[in-house]
Amino acid sequence: MAKGLKVATIGGGSSYTPELIEGFIKRYDEFPLTELWLVDIEAGKEKLEIVGNLAKRMVEKAGLPIEVHLTLDREVALKDADFVTTQFRVGLLEARAKDERIPLKYDVLGQETNGPGGLFKGLRTIPVIIDICNDMERLCPDAWLINFTNPAGMVTEAVLRYTNIEKVIGLCNVPIGIEMGIAKLLEVEHERVHIDFAGLNHMVYGLDVYLDGVSVKEKVIDMLTNPENTSFVKNVKGLGWEPEFIRGLNALTCPYHNYYYKSREMLEKTKKEAEEKGTRAEVVLQLEKELFELYKDPNLNIKPPQLEERGGAYYSDAAVRLITSIYNDKRDIQPVNTRNNGAIASLPDDSAVEVSCIITKEGPKPISIGDLPVAVRGLVQQIKSFERISAEAAVTGDYDKAVLALSINPLTPSDTIAKQIVDEMMEAHKEHLPQFHQ
Amino acid sequence: MAKGLKVATIGGGSSYTPELIEGFIKRYDEFPLTELWLVDIEAGKEKLEIVGNLAKRMVEKAGLPIEVHLTLDREVALKDADFVTTQFRVGLLEARAKDERIPLKYDVLGQETNGPGGLFKGLRTIPVIIDICNDMERLCPDAWLINFTNPAGMVTEAVLRYTNIEKVIGLCNVPIGIEMGIAKLLEVEHERVHIDFAGLNHMVYGLDVYLDGVSVKEKVIDMLTNPENTSFVKNVKGLGWEPEFIRGLNALTCPYHNYYYKSREMLEKTKKEAEEKGTRAEVVLQLEKELFELYKDPNLNIKPPQLEERGGAYYSDAAVRLITSIYNDKRDIQPVNTRNNGAIASLPDDSAVEVSCIITKEGPKPISIGDLPVAVRGLVQQIKSFERISAEAAVTGDYDKAVLALSINPLTPSDTIAKQIVDEMMEAHKEHLPQFHQ
Amino acid sequence: MAKGLKVATIGGGSSYTPELIEGFIKRYDEFPLTELWLVDIEAGKEKLEIVGNLAKRMVEKAGLPIEVHLTLDREVALKDADFVTTQFRVGLLEARAKDERIPLKYDVLGQETNGPGGLFKGLRTIPVIIDICNDMERLCPDAWLINFTNPAGMVTEAVLRYTNIEKVIGLCNVPIGIEMGIAKLLEVEHERVHIDFAGLNHMVYGLDVYLDGVSVKEKVIDMLTNPENTSFVKNVKGLGWEPEFIRGLNALTCPYHNYYYKSREMLEKTKKEAEEKGTRAEVVLQLEKELFELYKDPNLNIKPPQLEERGGAYYSDAAVRLITSIYNDKRDIQPVNTRNNGAIASLPDDSAVEVSCIITKEGPKPISIGDLPVAVRGLVQQIKSFERISAEAAVTGDYDKAVLALSINPLTPSDTIAKQIVDEMMEAHKEHLPQFHQ
Amino acid sequence: MAKGLKVATIGGGSSYTPELIEGFIKRYDEFPLTELWLVDIEAGKEKLEIVGNLAKRMVEKAGLPIEVHLTLDREVALKDADFVTTQFRVGLLEARAKDERIPLKYDVLGQETNGPGGLFKGLRTIPVIIDICNDMERLCPDAWLINFTNPAGMVTEAVLRYTNIEKVIGLCNVPIGIEMGIAKLLEVEHERVHIDFAGLNHMVYGLDVYLDGVSVKEKVIDMLTNPENTSFVKNVKGLGWEPEFIRGLNALTCPYHNYYYKSREMLEKTKKEAEEKGTRAEVVLQLEKELFELYKDPNLNIKPPQLEERGGAYYSDAAVRLITSIYNDKRDIQPVNTRNNGAIASLPDDSAVEVSCIITKEGPKPISIGDLPVAVRGLVQQIKSFERISAEAAVTGDYDKAVLALSINPLTPSDTIAKQIVDEMMEAHKEHLPQFHQ
Ligand SMILES: [Mn+2]
Ligand SMILES: [Mn+2]
Ligand SMILES: [Mn+2]
Ligand SMILES: [Mn+2]
Repeated sequence: MAKGLKVATIGGGSSYTPELIEGFIKRYDEFPLTELWLVDIEAGKEKLEIVGNLAKRMVEKAGLPIEVHLTLDREVALKDADFVTTQFRVGLLEARAKDERIPLKYDVLGQETNGPGGLFKGLRTIPVIIDICNDMERLCPDAWLINFTNPAGMVTEAVLRYTNIEKVIGLCNVPIGIEMGIAKLLEVEHERVHIDFAGLNHMVYGLDVYLDGVSVKEKVIDMLTNPENTSFVKNVKGLGWEPEFIRGLNALTCPYHNYYYKSREMLEKTKKEAEEKGTRAEVVLQLEKELFELYKDPNLNIKPPQLEERGGAYYSDAAVRLITSIYNDKRDIQPVNTRNNGAIASLPDDSAVEVSCIITKEGPKPISIGDLPVAVRGLVQQIKSFERISAEAAVTGDYDKAVLALSINPLTPSDTIAKQIVDEMMEAHKEHLPQFHQ
Repeated sequence: MAKGLKVATIGGGSSYTPELIEGFIKRYDEFPLTELWLVDIEAGKEKLEIVGNLAKRMVEKAGLPIEVHLTLDREVALKDADFVTTQFRVGLLEARAKDERIPLKYDVLGQETNGPGGLFKGLRTIPVIIDICNDMERLCPDAWLINFTNPAGMVTEAVLRYTNIEKVIGLCNVPIGIEMGIAKLLEVEHERVHIDFAGLNHMVYGLDVYLDGVSVKEKVIDMLTNPENTSFVKNVKGLGWEPEFIRGLNALTCPYHNYYYKSREMLEKTKKEAEEKGTRAEVVLQLEKELFELYKDPNLNIKPPQLEERGGAYYSDAAVRLITSIYNDKRDIQPVNTRNNGAIASLPDDSAVEVSCIITKEGPKPISIGDLPVAVRGLVQQIKSFERISAEAAVTGDYDKAVLALSINPLTPSDTIAKQIVDEMMEAHKEHLPQFHQ
Repeated sequence: MAKGLKVATIGGGSSYTPELIEGFIKRYDEFPLTELWLVDIEAGKEKLEIVGNLAKRMVEKAGLPIEVHLTLDREVALKDADFVTTQFRVGLLEARAKDERIPLKYDVLGQETNGPGGLFKGLRTIPVIIDICNDMERLCPDAWLINFTNPAGMVTEAVLRYTNIEKVIGLCNVPIGIEMGIAKLLEVEHERVHIDFAGLNHMVYGLDVYLDGVSVKEKVIDMLTNPENTSFVKNVKGLGWEPEFIRGLNALTCPYHNYYYKSREMLEKTKKEAEEKGTRAEVVLQLEKELFELYKDPNLNIKPPQLEERGGAYYSDAAVRLITSIYNDKRDIQPVNTRNNGAIASLPDDSAVEVSCIITKEGPKPISIGDLPVAVRGLVQQIKSFERISAEAAVTGDYDKAVLALSINPLTPSDTIAKQIVDEMMEAHKEHLPQFHQ
Repeated sequence: MAKGLKVATIGGGSSYTPELIEGFIKRYDEFPLTELWLVDIEAGKEKLEIVGNLAKRMVEKAGLPIEVHLTLDREVALKDADFVTTQFRVGLLEARAKDERIPLKYDVLGQETNGPGGLFKGLRTIPVIIDICNDMERLCPDAWLINFTNPAGMVTEAVLRYTNIEKVIGLCNVPIGIEMGIAKLLEVEHERVHIDFAGLNHMVYGLDVYLDGVSVKEKVIDMLTNPENTSFVKNVKGLGWEPEFIRGLNALTCPYHNYYYKSREMLEKTKKEAEEKGTRAEVVLQLEKELFELYKDPNLNIKPPQLEERGGAYYSDAAVRLITSIYNDKRDIQPVNTRNNGAIASLPDDSAVEVSCIITKEGPKPISIGDLPVAVRGLVQQIKSFERISAEAAVTGDYDKAVLALSINPLTPSDTIAKQIVDEMMEAHKEHLPQFHQ
């Protein structure tokens, strides 16, 4: 580290990169980055150059001594890195489009993280992340791996179980989004609100809510179930929870819970949208095209506001916040995906969980929550089972395990339909699933 | 016990009673029953007399000195009993018909144990069983409560959590049925086959299979997934599992798993049957009418063979086998519903589980199984959550908890539909749900 | 709280009080105390007045608007308090002298926390603390109870198990003392050193050591076992650990570990000291007399430096630091005694443990440590067993449990000697053990 | 197994062998042994021949077709064995004499299983048992390893943790001895008494006692603490427990508990005996000489009654009973040392525990006991820690771990004395501790 701080970003050609750059610029005082290596694969070369050049212009405008390197050589990028961030997408958005379209044919939600889409994204991604970890072991064994790539829970689980990299953190913007939503509901500054989070990635619950350190959970639950707040809640939560359900649960849900506690409505909605305006991947594909056109503009030297529409708000910002807290041993509380280590009683100690942690220079230390509320313990366990069997299938290339993983997923209506979807998706993603096609 | 062995059977007017009688007659040598008290409520008086008189004729034919008493006075029946068995049905088959019909209107399976039907059967049954337990505490504190009444897992959970009765066992014929099916598949005597069972009531898995004490699980899984055995397997299992699913699972399923791993097909099938020949309750209602006509025949003094069609084969027989093993401290292995006590790692120590136990005079002692296979751990946990929240709703009359219980049930497609079903069923079963209508 | 912040200090006549006052004065900016109520019993009236008047002079000198009240009426003191601190000593130092002397007759260490002395201090103290908790429930149900009274682990355990007060924290200066010692060893500022603590009160281990957030455990263990550091280590640790032992343990010990890992040497040393200069209590009795003489001086308006010799350095300071962090929702890390809640795997969830916690306005939240190192897990479990049985004896007055508690204590060489000591101490402390003498 | 049943006995030249032979002869009907291979090392050749020839005469007298083979070639003996029993003693009784004598010099009990003696016996034995397991993996991978060699708990732990042999059972005669003692106390046949055992080898507790299946624990505890039974109890238990201690404990102890709950008295007694008549090893050395003289008699063809004085009554018999139950899938209950698997809550799942198990053809399945009583949980955990660190030291040859193991042992008064004892014993046993002397 003599020569300064080095970050390597795998999938550096992503349209998200300007946000990451903005994050590094904003927090430069606390995190004096020296070298940022944006690395991508041959097929992403053109995008890498477009977004990389924008990155360089942004840094130049900020007047900061950060070197931005663009490369297709992952080893060079990883060598002696202090932090590695991953935001790549095996098979690009075209693959996601298939993840969404194919299950819909069977009247099943694709769901890109904990559904059939997530399974196949995991099957494509996990072998690559394991490769990266093996490289890291040789080239930068002390680096932290900050993974944004979805399904972030499954990927973190796979790194913990199937590689020697222990310094891994999975990151998601969902918890911070919930906190900001609640702050808005309470009409207070975000900084004054704190939520105890526990669960899994995209399956996380807010177990308590504090305003200036004092629990206001009861009040928040009241507000969320008050018919007069309906319009707000509908807006925040999507489809609107039944007050009885939320009062009975006595915990805050995350937007992804709609897939599990509102499966039928979500299926209808998703089918309708897919028909009318395309699946999310298809919409984003178009958005990305437009973004890259903007990025090409040699006069553009800031993050264009249109990027916010792309989704993933706060994502890269959250990442830089996390990195900064590690680097400075800040000991603040952030919800991240890390090894459970007993923090959530009924989940395995060695599994990845998403939980409020103290962020130290030695990594996140989870706050002990005891056990999850009875009502949510089952679904969380089920998604963990799904993640574990999926990761196992990804690593072993065991076809039976892939069918099993999808059969036990709560979104799948039967083993037979699971098998049909797996068969069709295995074929459609053949190119990116070498472990199943030998 | 000075004067002999006394058994009290709550719901003695049930059409099943002749099977129970047959069980006591067959095992009289080992279990010298002195007094059998069949007790029922006013509304069941006529049936009690019909079936009670048949019981008396059966005992007389067997030439055994068992006194059969018919009574509407539960306290007299319970007084100093050694065993209490429960086979009552609050609201009779008419209530079950509603449990099945109403959810179907919402395209949801009724499922009389772990679905909406099970929730409402639990809400009706649990307050009564708690009453019985309170009576037992006063009148026969040393008696064993052998509960057949469904949902047996939820009812056992409620007894363990909300009464002072510790000597309670929930009983089901599903495990023994699986064992007999596997024996048939292997073409050997039932006695030579042994299965390690673990899970919950109607959510139990066979974790290993032994023939003459040697594991033949691999062979059995092969046979179950061999296309040549398909016809057998279809027959045993209902709809036929995908071989990949079963190989991946590497455990034996129970017939009720069809509801969870084949939800869509089961829904279609159930709707079709309901339309064409009525729901199961409606079919059974007719069967029962015919059975009671038979029972009236003063010349009938054996269990009529038609009873077998009624379903519940081995049920009462299993009960008498269990009672006999307790009475004689037999220390044989039987799968029953009992306090977990650490036998299944990720389930609460103080919850009811269905697991292979040693049956001693002091009750069942579960065999430690460590943890369930990863793939099934989640669904089992989820059903346990459902059972616990349902039991809580039954005891407290908390409407929010009833909606919550149904919302987290894997058969329910959304909180909104859960609420609609709960609303309609609360109204339909009003008479039997005083705790919600005060 | 409208009128400001109120603290009630039970045992306010203690010689420690000036340190507590100093702490409140130093941290007034962060913790604007309005009323401090020093409460004591009739027998302590004189001391209360002496020390209370010193307290008033200290506050006056500091020029702060803190009202200091002296009272014998606990109820008045507790009414609407925000924090309650306890530093009382049932039976005064005379009782402690017996706790030390009597066991020595049997060649057994008295050990005022986790030995025979601790057992009897617990038996005397726990009924009083339970009384206080019952008062708090009525008079200040939202207050935090900060307990300094030893045996702090056993007392916290008793409050958690036998009262309705959940807002209780046990406090000890041992962990902070270790941290300061290690900072000195490393020749750095205390602020730069952080230790992960886990275990029980007076049985706590440092599992990792960080300098500026980076683990330096290996280096510290090397230094502690380096013969060249011997003089330092001897000084810090008392008798000097064998390097093999510390390297094998691979964790930091606390001074009280000398009692368990150096029992024989400690016994010899303690006997010799008792003979030559009296037991610790006897020495302190003299010291206290001198202190109170000083306190009487109407010109004294600061904490006299001689108090430091009394021992308990940082104690009250640590308490005010803790209170300030709660009050301000500081979210810093402090090791305290609190409900385990799964933070240490092999100890009960509902037991008190001493562990690094985040201190929030809602109290301490333990950091999940997984499990203790194998080598220490047993001794910690054993002391926890001792604490639990002792607390049970204190609450129930069950003589058998008192003998059992002492018999299982690692300092006790046999059940027979345990019984002899219990018998003699029961008699000697008769006046303060009404629960055993009815 | 085509040609019949083969048993290999490592340490076949032991004086115990005639008891084992008697066991096989008595149970031949149930366990039709074909070949018994007695194997020993070069140094034990003479004894092997003497006792082996007696074994042959015993079999001949019994008129059974069991071939008895004597060999120094372990591989030939293990090849295709169905059961392997181990009763060897590395360093012979001379080594045990040192295990006993050296600690006494430091006023520390030797204790051949869970004390310093046990540590060194483990250090000598574990490398050999691991060798045997490695041979078994190649030569008889389906065989059961029935280990009698002490320290049986530590050895079983080492096999479970450091070899691939899963089919291992540690065996001890202590539980059966307790059961027989209680039967005698109750003046009933042994068959009518059953005890629930749980704990570790030589650290096992009887948690409940049944007579004809009904708990009589209260009555037994009463009898054990009744002064009128004192003489009986003294006789059974050695030194006599204090009634308060036993009532408080509310569980049955084992004779080895004297070492922990009566350390001082045991030390005095052991020192006195060592002085007056030699340590146990020295006494046994003489006894063994006499036994082997007897064994040489060509007319002797039964187990000579003098063997009973040697100690270890029921040991081999217990072994054959266990083997017979496995072979015949008897599903009876026997207390053995096996993988915990959650049966005892606060001990690791993958550690060896001594617990009541169902003995099946697939091995022992532990009965779930929940958790140990609070009062014993600590000491059991501590001995488990000692066993684990000792096994680790034995496998790694890590000197620090050996000092650590002894330092945490409850019989050791300090780390310094631990180190002194380890130093002297390392030297004394040098020949048998190659892992520490490289
Ligand atoms: Mn996310
Ligand atoms: Mn059933
Ligand atoms: Mn302290
Ligand atoms: Mn033994």
